[in-house]
Amino acid sequence: MTRTVLESKSKTVVIGFDEPFCVIGERINPTGRKKLAAELEAGDFSTVERDALEQVACGAMVLDVNAGVVYNSNPNPNETEPPLMRRMIELVQGLVDVPLCIDSSVPGALEAGLAVCEGRPLLNSVTGEEERLEAILPLVKKYNVPVVAISNDDTGISEDPDVRFAVAKKIVQRAADFGIPAHDIVVDPLVMPVGAMASAGQQVFALVRRLREELGVNTTCGASNISFGLPNRHGVNAAFLPMAIGAGMTSAIMNPVRAVEMEAIRAANLLMNHDPNGGEWIRFSRVLDAVKEGKSFAEASTEAAAGRSGGRGGREGRRRRG
Amino acid sequence: MTRTVLESKSKTVVIGFDEPFCVIGERINPTGRKKLAAELEAGDFSTVERDALEQVACGAMVLDVNAGVVYNSNPNPNETEPPLMRRMIELVQGLVDVPLCIDSSVPGALEAGLAVCEGRPLLNSVTGEEERLEAILPLVKKYNVPVVAISNDDTGISEDPDVRFAVAKKIVQRAADFGIPAHDIVVDPLVMPVGAMASAGQQVFALVRRLREELGVNTTCGASNISFGLPNRHGVNAAFLPMAIGAGMTSAIMNPVRAVEMEAIRAANLLMNHDPNGGEWIRFSRVLDAVKEGKSFAEASTEAAAGRSGGRGGREGRRRRG
Repeated sequence: MTRTVLESKSKTVVIGFDEPFCVIGERINPTGRKKLAAELEAGDFSTVERDALEQVACGAMVLDVNAGVVYNSNPNPNETEPPLMRRMIELVQGLVDVPLCIDSSVPGALEAGLAVCEGRPLLNSVTGEEERLEAILPLVKKYNVPVVAISNDDTGISEDPDVRFAVAKKIVQRAADFGIPAHDIVVDPLVMPVGAMASAGQQVFALVRRLREELGVNTTCGASNISFGLPNRHGVNAAFLPMAIGAGMTSAIMNPVRAVEMEAIRAANLLMNHDPNGGEWIRFSRVLDAVKEGKSFAEASTEAAAGRSGGRGGREGRRRRG
Repeated sequence: MTRTVLESKSKTVVIGFDEPFCVIGERINPTGRKKLAAELEAGDFSTVERDALEQVACGAMVLDVNAGVVYNSNPNPNETEPPLMRRMIELVQGLVDVPLCIDSSVPGALEAGLAVCEGRPLLNSVTGEEERLEAILPLVKKYNVPVVAISNDDTGISEDPDVRFAVAKKIVQRAADFGIPAHDIVVDPLVMPVGAMASAGQQVFALVRRLREELGVNTTCGASNISFGLPNRHGVNAAFLPMAIGAGMTSAIMNPVRAVEMEAIRAANLLMNHDPNGGEWIRFSRVLDAVKEGKSFAEASTEAAAGRSGGRGGREGRRRRG
């Protein structure tokens, strides 16, 4: 059984075929978030703090940390991103005890993150591009961490799923040359928008099955990409995630502060027999009840998480909330 | 490709691997509906009429009709059910132009329904029980209709999915002896509640794949059974349906007057590439928008259906609603 082991200072999360779906919170990322980018350049980390706490309360098992700000004062990310990544990693791991996913296109920022990160983080990412393989795989080996492998190469992103499978296979083989085992490669088969490519869903489901059966690797994706450009995106995401999980997908990089998508994942865990006795589903249903009464999902989740960690006195406190 | 062809007076619905998921509306059934049972005994068909119209407006492609009332005035269903079935079928097919699913445990009621039903209805159901096979398969052959085959036999319902597969296989073989082709058998592999049997979801997904690959048959199920006894049942159903569709399930007998489940099915159709250009998804999103503005799902669906059939002046009328 393929198991990708991630660790924080004191907690272990396993991505695996026989594990609950691993939700990797995507929000700590200034890409496309102008306000957050400006805050980070100004040294204001309040949004990062809130995003870290909220995402974990809502069910993120791993947090992605991306420091990809292009500073107005210095447009060279090779200079600015490594120290910012270091600072963000230190901040987040001081706040929450979940494994991190160090996310950057700048190899220096990945290494800066690896140098300060406690436990065993996930590195995000390597691709099939030659330059990237040569830059990233030595880091993966040196720090003995798992890595996300995105199925594009020097020719770009292929619309042909067979080509994307071949790229993933090449990355797994190149990693093996470095002594990196397949269970430390988490392949992102690349999710296309179904509004632009009608076969996008079926492509992913078929690819995930092949990646699992032929390469024995775990898989991840940027889940919300499937619904890009469509009305009522959450409804599409909420069907896509269970279908991907049924096909064998084992993690996703996504926004966990969304009740609809998290409900779909928790129900899928139950249906995959990855929620023994339905305990997680029953607890989550209480959060949904609070949402129906008018609370935001983040509020309701935060209160439930406080109850679970014994904020009001352990078992007795939980019972009163039930 | 397996195609199960159903017909009403003027419409054809195909259940098949390359078709949108076939929603069979379950509501016209007095089982567990005391008020409806009393109405039917009193000759009041107003609820049947409303259920027929609402279900079709909400997206049912086929309507199940069950006349299983035990009359207070006459406790023998062999006498009371056939004439009631005949009357209900005539009523429903006079109101809506969708294929019907004639549903009874009383062979005389099935034959009474077959005698008056226009087009090519689905018969519901045969099982692996010897007596039932001998009573029902000749009717299926005589009227040249497809039939739902439920995977239990004289030993009851097995918890072992291999036994349920074997029962389905036996029914398909016995049907073949009568000259009934596999594409006219729609197997119900029997969905257990996941709250009582943790492997229930995975059992169904695996069974559906086997039934499709090894027997080449279409499949159906009583979908809501999966969530029996659990809180927030709609959330479980709404993940189960896309997962079952991804595994190859081609129809379900269910309540279509439920936005959450119908949203999951429409999104799954889109993701299976069974909604060319996303037209159905976009139309359905407008119904959801109306629900968000406070309309009931049945109201919003009925108005949208009226718009589509040109009730307010064809394309121009639809545009005004958009």
